[in-house]
Amino acid sequence: MRNILGREIPEYIQGYGEVEPFKGAFASLGQVVKKPVKLESAVPKQEKLLDSIRDALQKCNIKDGMTVSFHHHLRNGDYVLNMVLEEISKMGLKDIKVAASSIFPIHEPLVEYIKTGVVTGIYANYISGPVAEAISRGQLKNPAIMHTHGGRARAIEAGDVEIDIAFIAAPTCDTYGNINGVEGKSACGALGYAVPDAQYAEKTVAITDNLIPYPACPIEISQEYVDYVVEVESIGDIKGIVSGTTKITKDPVGLRIAKMTSELIQISGLLKDGFSFQTGAGGTSLAVAAYVKELMQKNNVKGSFAAGGITGYMVEMFEEGLFDALFDVQCFDLKAVKSYRDNKKHQKMSASMYGNPHNKGAVVNNLDVMILGATEIDVDFNVNVTTGSNGMIMGGSGGHSDTAAGAKLAIVVTQLIKGRLPIVVDRVTTVTTPGETIDVLVTERGIAINPSRKDLIQKLEKTNLPIMSIEALKNMAEEMTGVPEKVELYDEVVAVIEYRDGTVIDVVRKIKD
Amino acid sequence: MRNILGREIPEYIQGYGEVEPFKGAFASLGQVVKKPVKLESAVPKQEKLLDSIRDALQKCNIKDGMTVSFHHHLRNGDYVLNMVLEEISKMGLKDIKVAASSIFPIHEPLVEYIKTGVVTGIYANYISGPVAEAISRGQLKNPAIMHTHGGRARAIEAGDVEIDIAFIAAPTCDTYGNINGVEGKSACGALGYAVPDAQYAEKTVAITDNLIPYPACPIEISQEYVDYVVEVESIGDIKGIVSGTTKITKDPVGLRIAKMTSELIQISGLLKDGFSFQTGAGGTSLAVAAYVKELMQKNNVKGSFAAGGITGYMVEMFEEGLFDALFDVQCFDLKAVKSYRDNKKHQKMSASMYGNPHNKGAVVNNLDVMILGATEIDVDFNVNVTTGSNGMIMGGSGGHSDTAAGAKLAIVVTQLIKGRLPIVVDRVTTVTTPGETIDVLVTERGIAINPSRKDLIQKLEKTNLPIMSIEALKNMAEEMTGVPEKVELYDEVVAVIEYRDGTVIDVVRKIKD
Repeated sequence: MRNILGREIPEYIQGYGEVEPFKGAFASLGQVVKKPVKLESAVPKQEKLLDSIRDALQKCNIKDGMTVSFHHHLRNGDYVLNMVLEEISKMGLKDIKVAASSIFPIHEPLVEYIKTGVVTGIYANYISGPVAEAISRGQLKNPAIMHTHGGRARAIEAGDVEIDIAFIAAPTCDTYGNINGVEGKSACGALGYAVPDAQYAEKTVAITDNLIPYPACPIEISQEYVDYVVEVESIGDIKGIVSGTTKITKDPVGLRIAKMTSELIQISGLLKDGFSFQTGAGGTSLAVAAYVKELMQKNNVKGSFAAGGITGYMVEMFEEGLFDALFDVQCFDLKAVKSYRDNKKHQKMSASMYGNPHNKGAVVNNLDVMILGATEIDVDFNVNVTTGSNGMIMGGSGGHSDTAAGAKLAIVVTQLIKGRLPIVVDRVTTVTTPGETIDVLVTERGIAINPSRKDLIQKLEKTNLPIMSIEALKNMAEEMTGVPEKVELYDEVVAVIEYRDGTVIDVVRKIKD
Repeated sequence: MRNILGREIPEYIQGYGEVEPFKGAFASLGQVVKKPVKLESAVPKQEKLLDSIRDALQKCNIKDGMTVSFHHHLRNGDYVLNMVLEEISKMGLKDIKVAASSIFPIHEPLVEYIKTGVVTGIYANYISGPVAEAISRGQLKNPAIMHTHGGRARAIEAGDVEIDIAFIAAPTCDTYGNINGVEGKSACGALGYAVPDAQYAEKTVAITDNLIPYPACPIEISQEYVDYVVEVESIGDIKGIVSGTTKITKDPVGLRIAKMTSELIQISGLLKDGFSFQTGAGGTSLAVAAYVKELMQKNNVKGSFAAGGITGYMVEMFEEGLFDALFDVQCFDLKAVKSYRDNKKHQKMSASMYGNPHNKGAVVNNLDVMILGATEIDVDFNVNVTTGSNGMIMGGSGGHSDTAAGAKLAIVVTQLIKGRLPIVVDRVTTVTTPGETIDVLVTERGIAINPSRKDLIQKLEKTNLPIMSIEALKNMAEEMTGVPEKVELYDEVVAVIEYRDGTVIDVVRKIKD
C-alpha cells in the first residue's frame, strides 16, 4: 500500500496491527470520542505515600504486558524511567510497553531490557541515543510507535495508547499527590507532557525528591489524578535537566539564514501587533528570534504570545514587552523555570492544549510563525526529523508536525548541505511532517516557497530575497555533493510514524550497517 | 421502598427513572468509569467568536429535549442563565433541561419557562427563591434532581448528567475561549464549579462582558474545552455577584455557640500544626473562625489550609500565616477575589477536586474540621438543609454532604430553636446529609456527639462543655416550643435528592399550602 504521500507502508504490521494510512493533515477533523477513563476512587483518610517504587508497582498490580508511561521534562537528566524499569526488571516482569514522551541517551539501560524481553514495545515522540540505535537495528520485539507531542496527547485521550500506570517525575509533591515543577532541587518548570498521562492512566504514581507537606501550591497536576506518592533520593541530574543559557549561533551561514528568515517574516505581513511566534532552542532558530526581536523593536510591534518549550531568550523578549504572554509546555533552561514560577502571564499548557488536533482548539492553531528544523526535506516539502540519511532513528517529530499544521507560516530553516550531504532531496528517508503543512524552506543559498502558497510567492517575488524552486535548491546541493546514494534497508519495519491524528504517515525500516 | 436511613422512596419515579437507594456514605467507593467525552475538533484558523447567544444556540444545534448547563459564581447577580433561557424560549424550544450548579431568586424568569414547558427538568445543588417555590408546588414537569457540589461533578463525569451545551459566564475571555474570573467588571474569582461542565459537555459556549485579545492569562478554563465565544453587554450585577465584607455575628447566642465549638475543636486534638478547616460565610460560622483564630494564635498553631467558598475572613487568617494555603472553588467577596488573583498559594480547585467522591482523592478528604449549618437535624444526626419544616425547598446540599463525608470532624452549629420551631427533631423533613457523616451538634443549650464517635465522647466527657444526648437536646427544644405538627404533603415527588455518589438519599414531595 502507498499512502497519499506515496510512502510504501504494509497494510498490516506485525506487532502494530492494521494500518490506517495518512490521508492529509486535516482529513481527520470532526467528531471525536475520548476514552472512558477507569480509576479507583479514594477512600477518605486513605494514605497515598508508599515506601518504594516496588511498593507502588505492587499496589498498582503490575502484570506482564502492561503499559507504563513517563514524561521527558527531566530530559537527559531523568532518573525516573531507569529506576522504574530497573524495579520492573527485578520483579521478573516481561512484555512491558514503555510510553515515554521522549527517550534520551541517559535511558541506555532500556536497551538491556529490550534485549531480555522485559520491554517489548515503545511509544515515544522523540528517541535519541542507544535506544534509538537498538530500535533501528531491529532489537525491539514490536515496532516502536512514534507520535507527535500533540498526537501523543490525542492517542492517550482516545485510548489508542492505554496507560496502565503513569509515573510522574515530580520536582515537588505533597503527601496527597499534588505536583508542581517549580520548587525543589530538580525543578524543571512546566509539566505539560505529563498531564494527559495523569488524567487518563488507570493508575498514576508520583515519584519525587522533594516531598513537602500538603498542599504543594501552585498545583500543576492535581491530587484527583494521583494514586500513590513515592519519595526517592533524586529524580534526576540537574545538569541534564536544564541547560545553561541557550546561545544564538555565531556561524555566519546560520546568521545569514536567520536574517533572510526574519526579512521573509516581515514581508509576509504577519509581523504586526498580535504577532505570535515559536522557535526551537537551536542556534539558528534563536538567531531568527534575535532578528525578529530587532524588527519588532524597530517597528514597535507588540506581539501576542510565544509558545513551545520556552527558552531564556523567549523570556527576555517577553519581559521586554515584545510578547504579552508565554505558553509553556516545558522549560528549556533555568531562566524559563524562574519566569514560569513568578509570572502569571507565563502560562502553562498541557500537551493536549499545546498540540492535540482532536480538541476544541490547540495553541498551535494560533501561531503566526513557526521556525522548524529539518534533517532532510524533499521536493514535496515533506520533512524528516526522525531518521538520519542512513536510516537510523535520531529524533522524532516532537512538536514539529503539530506546529507546522497549526501555524499560518511554517518555515524550515537549514543549511543546504550538512556533513557533505544535501538536505534537500528527492525523497526523504522518513516523512515526519507532511509537505502540505510546510510553507517555506530557507537555506543560505536560496528560499523555496511551497507552490500552494501563491499569496506568499506573490509577496516575495518583488523583493531581493533569493526565491527559487525547491528543485533548484536540490540541484544546487547535488552539484556540490553529488547525488547521494540511496541507503539500503531491510524490509522489516522497526518503527511506525503516526501523524498527529493517529494515521500512519511513514514507517522506519531496519538498518543494514 | 425504604433506604438505609428509613426514608420512604418509590422504586421508580416518573420523570426520573429507577431509584438506586442510598446505602451508606462510603458504600459506592471502588472502581469508577467516566463517560467517553464527545466533541467536535477544531479546524486551524477557524474562529470561535459569534455575534449573539442566538448564533451560539444555532451553531450548537440546540434541539427540544436538550440539557443546557450553568454555574453559579455570579450568584444572585447572574444574568447569563436568564439571557440564554430567554433566547431558548424565543426560539420556540420545548422540554429543555437546565443543569445549573445553583439557582437563586434572580432566576425567577425560569418559573415562566417551567409553566410554558420550555423547561421541563432542573438539576441543581442549591435552589432558593421563586424557582424553589415553583418546584415545591409541583409546577416542573419532571422532578428536580438535586446534587451536592462534588456529586454534580461526579454525575457530569459519569455521564449521569449529559450536558449538551454548557454556558460559562466568563468575567474575562479571549477570542479563542480561554477564560479567567479575576479580571473584568464582573470579576468573581475562582470558577471551580464550571470546570466539569466545560470538560464534559459536548458543546461549551463562553459568555463574556470582557472580551480581550488572546490569550486571557492566567487561564482557568482552557480554549481546548470551549467551542464558541459570545460577547454581551453584561454577564451580571456586581452587587449580586460578590458581597461586601462578610461579618461575624454579634448575636450573643451565636457567639456562645461559636465559643463552645472552638473549645471543642481544641479538645478534639486536631488544632495543631497542619490543621485544616472549612466554614461557611454565615455569621455564626465566621464567629467560629474568629475563635479558632484566637486559639491558633495563642497556641502558635501553623495550619495547612482552609478550603471552600473563600471569604475575606479566611483570607485574613491566610495572610496572617495561620494557614499555608487556601483551596478555592468560589470567592465569596472582593477580598477573596483579590487574594485569589494575586497569591499563588490561594489555589483554585474544580468542583471535582473539591468534593467528587469518585476521583483519586478530593480536597474534602483532607479536612480536619468542617463547620456546617442545619435547618433541621434529627436524632440520628441526619441533617436537612434542603427544605424548610413546611416542606418547601429553600436550599440544598451545596458542599454540605461532601465536606461532612470528608472531614475528620464535621460539626453542625445551630441555635436550638429558630422561628419558634425546634431544630432538633425526631425525623427531618428531608435528609440532605446522612447522620453517619456528622460528628457533633453544637447548640447554645448543649452539645451532642454522634454515639459512633466514642473517641470524641471520651475526650469531651471530662470537660466543662455541656455534653448531652441528642435526644436530650430534642426534648429540651420541645419543652419550649411543644412538639411541632407534622407537615402534610402530597405523595407526588417534586425533587429527588441524590447523595454525592448518585444514590437517592431522599425525595421532596409536593407541598399542600
